[in-house]
Amino acid sequence: MQLIHTIAELRAALAGQQETAFVPTMGNLHSGHISLIELARRHGGPVVASIFVNPLQFGAGEDFSRYPRTLQADCAQLQVAGCDIVFAPDANEMYPEAQTFSVHPPLADELCGAWRPGHFQGVATVVLKLFNMVQPRYAVFGKKDYQQLLILKGLVRQFNLPIVMLEGETGRADDGLALSSRNGYLSQLERAEAPRLYRLLRAAALRVESGDGDFSAIEQSVGDELTRQGWRVDYISLRSRSSLLAPAPDESDLVLLAAAHLGRTRLIDNIECSRPV
Amino acid sequence: MQLIHTIAELRAALAGQQETAFVPTMGNLHSGHISLIELARRHGGPVVASIFVNPLQFGAGEDFSRYPRTLQADCAQLQVAGCDIVFAPDANEMYPEAQTFSVHPPLADELCGAWRPGHFQGVATVVLKLFNMVQPRYAVFGKKDYQQLLILKGLVRQFNLPIVMLEGETGRADDGLALSSRNGYLSQLERAEAPRLYRLLRAAALRVESGDGDFSAIEQSVGDELTRQGWRVDYISLRSRSSLLAPAPDESDLVLLAAAHLGRTRLIDNIECSRPV
Repeated sequence: MQLIHTIAELRAALAGQQETAFVPTMGNLHSGHISLIELARRHGGPVVASIFVNPLQFGAGEDFSRYPRTLQADCAQLQVAGCDIVFAPDANEMYPEAQTFSVHPPLADELCGAWRPGHFQGVATVVLKLFNMVQPRYAVFGKKDYQQLLILKGLVRQFNLPIVMLEGETGRADDGLALSSRNGYLSQLERAEAPRLYRLLRAAALRVESGDGDFSAIEQSVGDELTRQGWRVDYISLRSRSSLLAPAPDESDLVLLAAAHLGRTRLIDNIECSRPV
Repeated sequence: MQLIHTIAELRAALAGQQETAFVPTMGNLHSGHISLIELARRHGGPVVASIFVNPLQFGAGEDFSRYPRTLQADCAQLQVAGCDIVFAPDANEMYPEAQTFSVHPPLADELCGAWRPGHFQGVATVVLKLFNMVQPRYAVFGKKDYQQLLILKGLVRQFNLPIVMLEGETGRADDGLALSSRNGYLSQLERAEAPRLYRLLRAAALRVESGDGDFSAIEQSVGDELTRQGWRVDYISLRSRSSLLAPAPDESDLVLLAAAHLGRTRLIDNIECSRPV
């Protein structure tokens, strides 16, 4: 496995490759990331993982500076997983000048975007840059960041990038908690409480699947229960799986998305569900 | 020469090409465009010209609907010039769904951008799409659209596109008028008047080169003279050649840019000049 820090070396290492599979990450890898590498490996070309904590996608007061940087441990995991190239540029390599061009995606002010202004603009901008550096045939993203995945699928489609998007299922701990680098911020007590989010989402999804059509009441009950348990809820929202907008009356394929703070840690999760039509 | 209308056929025709040179146009070609094709041909790879009148870059009340569409004549010229592929998609091929993703370039509200809100956003968005369809090694743009050229050079640099940008000099009629598809809108009288714009820019550039540092007075005198002759001036502005912002006190490489309406035709032109430092 090669560890590469510059764009020039990356391009040289990938020259002529037509089947590169790419897994962009911010590092601090867990088994959720590793399952994305495994997905990438199925396609036979070289597997590239990037590790870059992108300042553009963090807002003022967010956790950019304390976000865990664990390059050595990440590389060890990636090597075992069969990754071929780790691309770990520094901020100056990614942004040698102030990034004055940006990509403006739709849905950027919805859901997480409403709580993190500029976040998805920063994500779309850095991912477009990384795509142009790696020029992959396949790119792999996890469904845990459901809104991000939908936005990046739109980016590829609407900017006509010749990339196939692959989706990885959310990795979960035994108690159901979605794997996330931010779980490392949780205290022992918070970690014990954290799985409640997914438990409540699963219960709500069952209500939807059993035909309960009062989506506001379902969302409200999840939010209320979290609040009672000391969480600070950003949103609980049942949306169309294809558009992430409010579902049309006849739309069956839905996703229930949630973001809430436990102490000073913001957790997100989601669950796909289908209503009977 | 192949005439191609779909992205799929374009990709198939260019598969494996590493040295494609690309000339994006809106058609209605004149010898200025043809000189860009000749620039493209020097690089040895296949030469692709696109012809697409991009609705995204026209504002309400602009000339989108009357912009001349002359595909057959354009193809004849391109064939003679040695173009290999003409890519002429229709609007549905370029925008099969509402284009909800856009590129936001800097300088988009400056100069022409101040008078054409959304124009450079539309230009940057369609050019990024075209780049991803053609995946050229070289892209050729004319200096007549100076601000567009600077913005697109920034697009390539800041989104890390593996494209070399080539710049073509402005083609001019014998009387100095910059070649433009929009010249076709001019009446005979207006056509006789039109070269005044470049004559005034040349005279102003001489003042700059001879050491006159009163840029506002220089800009003003060009504007005043045009107004006296019945033009409606959008802007006359002396800018830094590298940034298109107001020149720094010690900056020598400048460009004088102008946009003005003659009757219902909007003309733009520019001239590079250097002040003694």
